[in-house]
Amino acid sequence: MRAVVWDGSVISVEERPPPEPSSDMAIIAVTLAGVCTTDLEIARGYMDFRGVLGHEVVGVVEEGPAEWLGRRVVSEINFACGTCPACRGGLGRHCPTRRVMGILATDGAFAEHVAAPVANLHAVPDGVRDEDAVFSEPLAAAFEILEQMTIEPGQRALVLGDGKLGLLIAQVLERAGAKVHAVGRHPEKLAILDARGIETSLASEFQPAKEMDISVEATGSLSGFETAVAATRPRGTVVLKSTLADRHDLDLAPVVIDEIRILGSRCGPFEPALAALASGEIDTASLVSEEVDLARGAEALRRAAEPGVLKVLIRSR
Amino acid sequence: MRAVVWDGSVISVEERPPPEPSSDMAIIAVTLAGVCTTDLEIARGYMDFRGVLGHEVVGVVEEGPAEWLGRRVVSEINFACGTCPACRGGLGRHCPTRRVMGILATDGAFAEHVAAPVANLHAVPDGVRDEDAVFSEPLAAAFEILEQMTIEPGQRALVLGDGKLGLLIAQVLERAGAKVHAVGRHPEKLAILDARGIETSLASEFQPAKEMDISVEATGSLSGFETAVAATRPRGTVVLKSTLADRHDLDLAPVVIDEIRILGSRCGPFEPALAALASGEIDTASLVSEEVDLARGAEALRRAAEPGVLKVLIRSR
Repeated sequence: MRAVVWDGSVISVEERPPPEPSSDMAIIAVTLAGVCTTDLEIARGYMDFRGVLGHEVVGVVEEGPAEWLGRRVVSEINFACGTCPACRGGLGRHCPTRRVMGILATDGAFAEHVAAPVANLHAVPDGVRDEDAVFSEPLAAAFEILEQMTIEPGQRALVLGDGKLGLLIAQVLERAGAKVHAVGRHPEKLAILDARGIETSLASEFQPAKEMDISVEATGSLSGFETAVAATRPRGTVVLKSTLADRHDLDLAPVVIDEIRILGSRCGPFEPALAALASGEIDTASLVSEEVDLARGAEALRRAAEPGVLKVLIRSR
Repeated sequence: MRAVVWDGSVISVEERPPPEPSSDMAIIAVTLAGVCTTDLEIARGYMDFRGVLGHEVVGVVEEGPAEWLGRRVVSEINFACGTCPACRGGLGRHCPTRRVMGILATDGAFAEHVAAPVANLHAVPDGVRDEDAVFSEPLAAAFEILEQMTIEPGQRALVLGDGKLGLLIAQVLERAGAKVHAVGRHPEKLAILDARGIETSLASEFQPAKEMDISVEATGSLSGFETAVAATRPRGTVVLKSTLADRHDLDLAPVVIDEIRILGSRCGPFEPALAALASGEIDTASLVSEEVDLARGAEALRRAAEPGVLKVLIRSR
């Protein structure tokens, strides 16, 4: 099969053997996959991964248990052992021996086929288009914030970063009852939130003022973390949503002085994400910058790295 | 009156005018004051403070409301306005216009007298010696952790740092039901905890293994923060207890990947600290390295900065 492969020095489209079926794994014929900033970070050294990239996927089950065959699915990306204390405690996403689709020790979805544990599959509701369902994984990551903390109605929430994840998080927090203020560098991206009645500001015009109950760092930059802390009220919460390959020079004294709570936040639950997509209350369509055929998958990743570009989808069929 | 003053370049004992009485302030005749690492940080530039140092104090009320006159007291260190939203919400310790005794915009307690708001006073229970009561402020800072999070019986808690605050925190967490493991660099300091049945290790022998429910950073060093994160289980909590004047090069990716919760933690409640001192269940006596007369106050601070030294007390009368 064709696949988009990172070999440690270049990203290229290659011919690879298709994934082997096994008892607890399903083989998904990939329809669409989404390019995530993490894919670009991997190509800068993050996680030291080699193999087929891609972890945002919608497709059709081609091999696996009879009840799943032919069904349109999305897949969770953490492949857990199912038996360790973390897994038994319901934290399979933190299984210490997990593999992660296209990120850690198992091939990803920028390919004609991808393998995933049957336990990781979620059926896509009939009313949800493939182009929206492919956002299940990043949208689940946005919903993870609601798993980790309670949002009180009317709480002031700052979202820093108008990239794909920031735009999803702003919508999820607004839907959860927060009064959201989104800050970014791209008027055309912020316009997606403006259209939904969410307050936005350009980063150049935003002044942090220790008033936010929650500040979400989704810029992936040092300045984003420091702005998030400076914008948050004493005893408020900063949610860290960016994984960075780099080390940064940071001052943690304000975190102590203002007794800020910092929540690292990664992958999230698919059920509320799929339910939100089915409700039509989350705009993902406006986040798609373009769709590229799998044969031009390497180009798709280069395109996704360009300024101003939001989600690039790779179509496998 | 005599006072230990930091003028931005040197610490010296000087003659200063005594604090002026005012309607809502009490004047405390200082008996004993404790040297804190924060005092040493101030002399390295922290908070840009100038004036009389010292914020751990026990003394006798000499001027103020009749009901307080002659009473033995300790004082909270955050002087709040009492009327702003933070104060009205019960977070006076985070009042944005607060002054902080010997740290921010108001003179401290390494002196013959110190002024404090009447609202900040706490009577010292009869059975508590001055030498123990003077630990109320740092012990309250240890109890602050219990205000910010729930400790479940048997939870594994790591305390990094065998300085004064680390030794108090280890005792408070053990008393709260946690299974504490304290790590430090000084066998003679860790012996204070060994004597109370608390597990200890030398830092050189401790291997972080992502297993702690709670890890408290009380070393004041970058390596302490990184060890705390590496020692904490996914979704566990790292408590930051050190305020540092420096910036550090940090990698926050493990915080996101393991969804660690970081709690900045500063000043705490005096009531449980005084109750714990009255119960006799916290060993403060072993933490006193020496007592120095106020006339030699500058020397006391130099002494407190030496390796192996724990609490240095300054006696004003």
